[in-house]
Amino acid sequence: MLHLNVFLFGCGHHRAAWCHPDSAAERLGDIAWYESLARTAERGKLDAVFFADGHSAGAFGMGSDGPLWYLEPLTMLSAMARATERIGLVSTVSSTFFTPFHAARMLASLDHISGGRMGWNVVTSMFDAEARNHGFEAMPDHAWRYARAEEFVEAVLRLWDSWDDNALIVDRRAGDYVRPGAVRRIDHRGEHFRVDGPLTVPRPPQGHPVMFQAGASEQGRDLAARYAEAIYAVAYDLPSAQAYYRDVKRRVRAAGRRDPVPIMPGLVTYVGSTEAEARAKQAELDALLPTESSLRQLQTFIDQDCMDWDLDAPVPPLPPLDAFKGPKGRYATILRIIDTERPTLRQLLGRLAAGGGHCTMVGTPEQIADRMEQWLREGGADGFNLMPPSLPHSLDDFIDQVVPVLQARGLFRRDYEAGTLRGHLGLARPVRKT
Amino acid sequence: MLHLNVFLFGCGHHRAAWCHPDSAAERLGDIAWYESLARTAERGKLDAVFFADGHSAGAFGMGSDGPLWYLEPLTMLSAMARATERIGLVSTVSSTFFTPFHAARMLASLDHISGGRMGWNVVTSMFDAEARNHGFEAMPDHAWRYARAEEFVEAVLRLWDSWDDNALIVDRRAGDYVRPGAVRRIDHRGEHFRVDGPLTVPRPPQGHPVMFQAGASEQGRDLAARYAEAIYAVAYDLPSAQAYYRDVKRRVRAAGRRDPVPIMPGLVTYVGSTEAEARAKQAELDALLPTESSLRQLQTFIDQDCMDWDLDAPVPPLPPLDAFKGPKGRYATILRIIDTERPTLRQLLGRLAAGGGHCTMVGTPEQIADRMEQWLREGGADGFNLMPPSLPHSLDDFIDQVVPVLQARGLFRRDYEAGTLRGHLGLARPVRKT
Ligand SMILES: Cc1cc2nc3c(=O)[nH]c(=O)nc-3n(C[C@H](O)[C@H](O)[C@H](O)COP(=O)(O)O)c2cc1C
Ligand SMILES: Cc1cc2nc3c(=O)[nH]c(=O)nc-3n(C[C@H](O)[C@H](O)[C@H](O)COP(=O)(O)O)c2cc1C
Repeated sequence: MLHLNVFLFGCGHHRAAWCHPDSAAERLGDIAWYESLARTAERGKLDAVFFADGHSAGAFGMGSDGPLWYLEPLTMLSAMARATERIGLVSTVSSTFFTPFHAARMLASLDHISGGRMGWNVVTSMFDAEARNHGFEAMPDHAWRYARAEEFVEAVLRLWDSWDDNALIVDRRAGDYVRPGAVRRIDHRGEHFRVDGPLTVPRPPQGHPVMFQAGASEQGRDLAARYAEAIYAVAYDLPSAQAYYRDVKRRVRAAGRRDPVPIMPGLVTYVGSTEAEARAKQAELDALLPTESSLRQLQTFIDQDCMDWDLDAPVPPLPPLDAFKGPKGRYATILRIIDTERPTLRQLLGRLAAGGGHCTMVGTPEQIADRMEQWLREGGADGFNLMPPSLPHSLDDFIDQVVPVLQARGLFRRDYEAGTLRGHLGLARPVRKT
Repeated sequence: MLHLNVFLFGCGHHRAAWCHPDSAAERLGDIAWYESLARTAERGKLDAVFFADGHSAGAFGMGSDGPLWYLEPLTMLSAMARATERIGLVSTVSSTFFTPFHAARMLASLDHISGGRMGWNVVTSMFDAEARNHGFEAMPDHAWRYARAEEFVEAVLRLWDSWDDNALIVDRRAGDYVRPGAVRRIDHRGEHFRVDGPLTVPRPPQGHPVMFQAGASEQGRDLAARYAEAIYAVAYDLPSAQAYYRDVKRRVRAAGRRDPVPIMPGLVTYVGSTEAEARAKQAELDALLPTESSLRQLQTFIDQDCMDWDLDAPVPPLPPLDAFKGPKGRYATILRIIDTERPTLRQLLGRLAAGGGHCTMVGTPEQIADRMEQWLREGGADGFNLMPPSLPHSLDDFIDQVVPVLQARGLFRRDYEAGTLRGHLGLARPVRKT
């Protein structure tokens, strides 16, 4: 059984999606827009919708010419909870910028409001511009951020456990609202935080809202292995997905855990009734890209002048990875795209503009279902984090055309069997630690 | 014209309200419960619903025997916004525990979600137990908190002004989402905060969500005078309301401001078709008080043994204020209640258990409307912050019985004339400072 989340982002994950005449570029501050997307996802019986978060305008490829950041996810989520009934709701929470008490309290509150459908994607944030909005001179270094993240997670989990599951007795005659002794301080003292507790909110319906993690580094993978209950990954193709999958599952076992910890790589899809139609949808978005600024961006990624290259000719050969002096991650992705897809320059710009290093599948519903099934069967993924390149069309296409194929093959639920996100993901409800 | 807010709190402001058989004590984590209360308030055309906030379990008289704290207000508000159409939504935000960036961003987001109906009540928080949930050893002192609050407010206002009102041009052909130069950094550097900006959210529909303040001290009143656009006050009776009103309006003028800055003292009401019926409602709640713990609490307030006093006899005379060694504020209130109401011991416990130093009005709708009108005409208030002692009954009584009398007298709107909280309160939309 696949797990499917949808990562809702701006007008879609393609940088130029907002320029499409049908885009909702004017509606990014309109909660009804997000509600309608979540209802579409729920119609498709997806496990969850996911909202990323950044603390500076323009973080994560939004900005410059396109939309900057927009509605703050935690404040959207109670509306989303009321607009849907069963689907999970996942929000990024930065352990670098929140205190554990704020995070635990807001997430617990939302878990009550949604009846047990909340998840949190723990991130450590990355940009100096974000840090400078919260009092830092620059982004604290990676190791410090992950040390803080671990302490943060520990404190949050203990806050959620500061109330017994059955603390509320509401005995009007005796005048006892909670069972005496059922709500306790946690007295956390650490390097980064002091948190006495108890939380001001009863234990969440799920015990703990589901913890997601998307770390790629050693520290990120280790944090995920020890605490994450589900993982968002980046995998360009099946071999890299398999390598990541093996590594992280090994770390989970090494951490002594037997939870399933589903791994969901990002997936950009262009769906058509024929392969040609699917490719035309992709080309339509790519054609909207502002070529000059995209070329300028590519220039920084590959560290050579490409402003005069022919947009509709194949990309000329680039020097091998070893010879490249700049940041290697993005450059490696570019080499792989050129190597496997032999794109024109315009197609390369389009691929980089939608999902970057994430996998892109273009084709008929059956073709896409085939590849998803292959990733599932061959140890590349337990599901996918869908990254629709344009909204609402790419999401509609997936829900209306690919989901039925997956359902017919018995790879995806035909209806929700559970009422909580934990239930959808097959995760046990955590027992309160005392 | 009166302004009316309702301060929604637990099962009502009477400490024993949760023990009433009809109370919603089981539903404090149920968002539908708050939605129904907000709809009632909207049916009564109130200016706003207000949610207080505390960062420790048991803050503000909740706790011990009764409900501890519950849903976190900022996470509730988008659901509240979707459950209502016109009424304002005010949430407390602590300047001691948030960063300005978090506060500005969440409030701006909620102002977009609600279509311009958000207000924030800036507080500096008060209890050590709260401070110890956010990394402090103890609550920082009053002066430090107010200095931080002022810088906090300044940074928040500048963040809201970091986008031009008409920044969004969404020019798909030119590829310009925002007007070049319309989104700018604020580069705030102060004693307490560094915030570079810009905000990640466009300028809120109201320009700035409406700022409320409820400070009683010199620093609190000064902060309110300089920044608050509406004020929640505590006034036991008309003379003390008039004194506060004169003082704060003078400070507002001295700060060079000409905004109306409506002042809304808290108001606890027991409404009946006869005065006797109203008194019976009050007595019914008072009878639910756990006498032993209430007496023990009174004992600490008056610093003498009262465990053996007769509950149904008048309270014996107490030493004058000058002779009292403990905290004077609460003691002064107790002396005034005894002096003006000649209560039995049980009645005194009831008065202290519902609204403490706030005004209580008990009577028929006409009697209560008379007194509200008197406060309005004689310079005691521009409106009231209703503090229903029990929910939903006390709120229903007020909306269904008192509001129509106020409307018939032309003292309160028959329907909303504006779509924003600013509009309800008669406040101008702030022009962006550059
Ligand atoms: C699907 C996905 C979503 C992510 N969402 C966010 C986000 O909302 N905010 C953020 O700061 N980082 C986000 N990240 C970045 C990761 O948290 C992480 O920082 C990144 O993968 C680099 O790994 P590392 O932190 O281990 O170095 C996301 C990553 C992925 C793959
Ligand atoms: C109606 C009303 C609501 C209040 N709500 C809160 C609140 O939600 N959280 C809080 O910490 N303080 C709250 N306060 C306390 C005030 O912010 C303030 O701290 C108190 O009146 C003492 O005044 P001072 O801060 O000037 O000393 C409230 C006060 C009033 C009158």
